[in-house]
Amino acid sequence: MLRLGYDIGGMSVRACLLDDESLQVKAECTRPFPLGKGEDAFIQQLTDMAEEICTPFGLTAEKQASVGIGMPGTVHKQTGVLLSACNLNLNGMPLGERLKAAFPNAAVAIANDADVAALAEYYAGAFKGYASALLITIGTGIGSGIIVDHRVFQGGLGIGSELGHIVLQQGGPMCSCGNRGCAETLCSASWLERQGRHSLMDYPMSRIAILADGKPENVKAKDVIAAAQAGDGIAKQIFEQYVENLAGLVATCSYIIAPEIVAIGGGVSNAEDFLLEPLTRSVTRRARRYVPKKIVTAALGNTAGMIGAALLPYAAKTGAIVSYHH
Amino acid sequence: MLRLGYDIGGMSVRACLLDDESLQVKAECTRPFPLGKGEDAFIQQLTDMAEEICTPFGLTAEKQASVGIGMPGTVHKQTGVLLSACNLNLNGMPLGERLKAAFPNAAVAIANDADVAALAEYYAGAFKGYASALLITIGTGIGSGIIVDHRVFQGGLGIGSELGHIVLQQGGPMCSCGNRGCAETLCSASWLERQGRHSLMDYPMSRIAILADGKPENVKAKDVIAAAQAGDGIAKQIFEQYVENLAGLVATCSYIIAPEIVAIGGGVSNAEDFLLEPLTRSVTRRARRYVPKKIVTAALGNTAGMIGAALLPYAAKTGAIVSYHH
Repeated sequence: MLRLGYDIGGMSVRACLLDDESLQVKAECTRPFPLGKGEDAFIQQLTDMAEEICTPFGLTAEKQASVGIGMPGTVHKQTGVLLSACNLNLNGMPLGERLKAAFPNAAVAIANDADVAALAEYYAGAFKGYASALLITIGTGIGSGIIVDHRVFQGGLGIGSELGHIVLQQGGPMCSCGNRGCAETLCSASWLERQGRHSLMDYPMSRIAILADGKPENVKAKDVIAAAQAGDGIAKQIFEQYVENLAGLVATCSYIIAPEIVAIGGGVSNAEDFLLEPLTRSVTRRARRYVPKKIVTAALGNTAGMIGAALLPYAAKTGAIVSYHH
Repeated sequence: MLRLGYDIGGMSVRACLLDDESLQVKAECTRPFPLGKGEDAFIQQLTDMAEEICTPFGLTAEKQASVGIGMPGTVHKQTGVLLSACNLNLNGMPLGERLKAAFPNAAVAIANDADVAALAEYYAGAFKGYASALLITIGTGIGSGIIVDHRVFQGGLGIGSELGHIVLQQGGPMCSCGNRGCAETLCSASWLERQGRHSLMDYPMSRIAILADGKPENVKAKDVIAAAQAGDGIAKQIFEQYVENLAGLVATCSYIIAPEIVAIGGGVSNAEDFLLEPLTRSVTRRARRYVPKKIVTAALGNTAGMIGAALLPYAAKTGAIVSYHH
C-alpha cells in the first residue's frame, strides 16, 4: 500500500508517499511551514502537498487510505487535539478531526515527531531486528525516541521522555530551563559550536579559526569536528570532551532503560566512526553490565520523520505505539 | 488463597503466608541465610520454613498451591536458573526445578527482589491505583523497582535498571565501580554516615558528635538525620545536600520514565516529611513537566520483599511481570 506521511517542523513540512512493502519512498516534497496563517491554511497545505505527490500514482486526498503525521510537541491520544505544538501557533487545533475531514477514506494517526522517528528506525532503519532501542537526535537541542519490547516507550505520564534536561554536570553551564549542566547544554551541537567560538580567543591560529575565517560567528559544530578530524589540538580537546558528555548521557539512559542498541542522529552523527568509536569506548567504561550491544548512527537521517509518519497508522493499529488514530 | 512468599537476602531469609484477598500476612518467620552450605541446605531451609508457617493453617509443602521467591541478582526467565545471585554462592543453581520438586503442587515463580518489592507496593502499598511508579530503596546501596503501564519495567536487556551507578556529579566521590559521582556514592545512607563522620573533626561539639559519643565509628545515618531534625547546623547542611543529591536522581529518572508516583524506602525514609517536603520541592524545581504527581515513603518497608514474592505467581500469570514461573 502507498502510505502518506508528514513530518511537521517549525521551518518546513515534509511529505512522502511510502510503499509499505518495499519501505521505499516513492515520492516526496517539502514546503515551508505556513507559520501564523492559521489552521485552514495548514490543512490546505497538507492536501495540496498530498495532491502533488499522489497524483502521479493515480491517488487523490479523497482516495488516500493511510495518512500519518509526526508533530513537534504533544497530541491528545484520544481526541487528536494538539496540546502543545511548540512554536507552530496551533495549540488546541483539533488536528485529528480536521484530517479525517480532509482525508475521508484514510486511517489517520498523529504522534510526537521523536517517537515517529524512532518507529521509522525500528521498521526501516538502524533498529531493524531489535526489541529495544534508543534514538538520540542531536541538533540545537536533544531529541529522543525509545523502543522497549517492540513498542514506543512513552513513559508513565504519557508525554514521552526528555533527555535534554537530565543534569549531567552539577553546577555546569546554565540551561534555558533554569537548571545547570543539562544534557542539552553539554551534548547539543550548540555546545560544540560555543566551545569552538570561545577557542578562537586563545587559539587564533587553530584549524577551527582558519575554517571560520577568524570570525567566531562563522564557527559551526561541523567545523570543530572537521578540525578535530584533521588533527587540530584544541579541536580534538573539545571533541573529546564532547564525546565524554554524550557518553554520560548514553550511560545514564542505559542504566535505566537498558536499550540493546543506541543510534545517534542529527548533524553530529555525520562524523560516523570518528564519533562512534570513542563514544562506544567511553560508554563501555561507564555503563558496565548495561552497555548497549551496539552504538550506531541513525540510518534514515532527516527522512526518519516522514517515513515513520507514513507507517504510523500501521504502528498504532498493531500496538507498536499508543497514539491518536482513527 | 494463602500464598507462600520468600524474600532471600545475604543475611536472612524471610517467609510469609499471605491471604491474597485481604492482602494480610497471616504468618511469617525469618531465619539466617545458610551461607556456604549449598543448594540442598537452602532448599531444606525453605521447606522447613514452609512447614513452620503453613502447619497452623493445615497446609504442607506438598499441598501448597502458590510459592514465590524474590532473589537478589538475576534469574533466567525461562529456566529459573540463578544467573548471578550476588553473594549467595548459588550461581548456576536450577532454583526453578528444585522448587517444583519441593512444592510439587504449587505454581512457582522467581524474580529479582527489587522488582518483587515494587510489585508489593503496586498491589498492596504505596502504588495502589497508579499505572506507573518508581521505588527507590536506600541502604548501603540504592535499589530500585519500576512500574510502567501496570507492569514491572525490566528494561531492554531484561536485567532491570540500576540507578545506583547513574553519575550525578562528574568528578564526584569515587565509587566501587571505578567511576566517580555515582548515585550510590551520593544518595545512599552510607553518604550521610560518611559526611557525619567527617564532620566530627571540624565540629566536635555538634549534636552528631554528642549522639555518637564523639566517636566517628559510632555515627549512623539516622544520627545525622536526628541531629538535623533537632536543628543542628552542620547536620542540617549535610542533610540538605543529601536531599539535593537524591532529588537529582529522582529528576533524572523522571525525565526518562516519568513515573506518576515515586516512593522512597529504606531507613532514610523513616524521616518521613522531614525528607519528603524538601525532596518534593527540589524535584519540582528540577523536573518541570516531568514532576511525579506524588513523592511518598514506601508503605510496606522491609515486608515488601516477602509480600511481593507471595503475589509473584499471580503477577507472572497476569503478565504484570515477565519472570520465571511454572
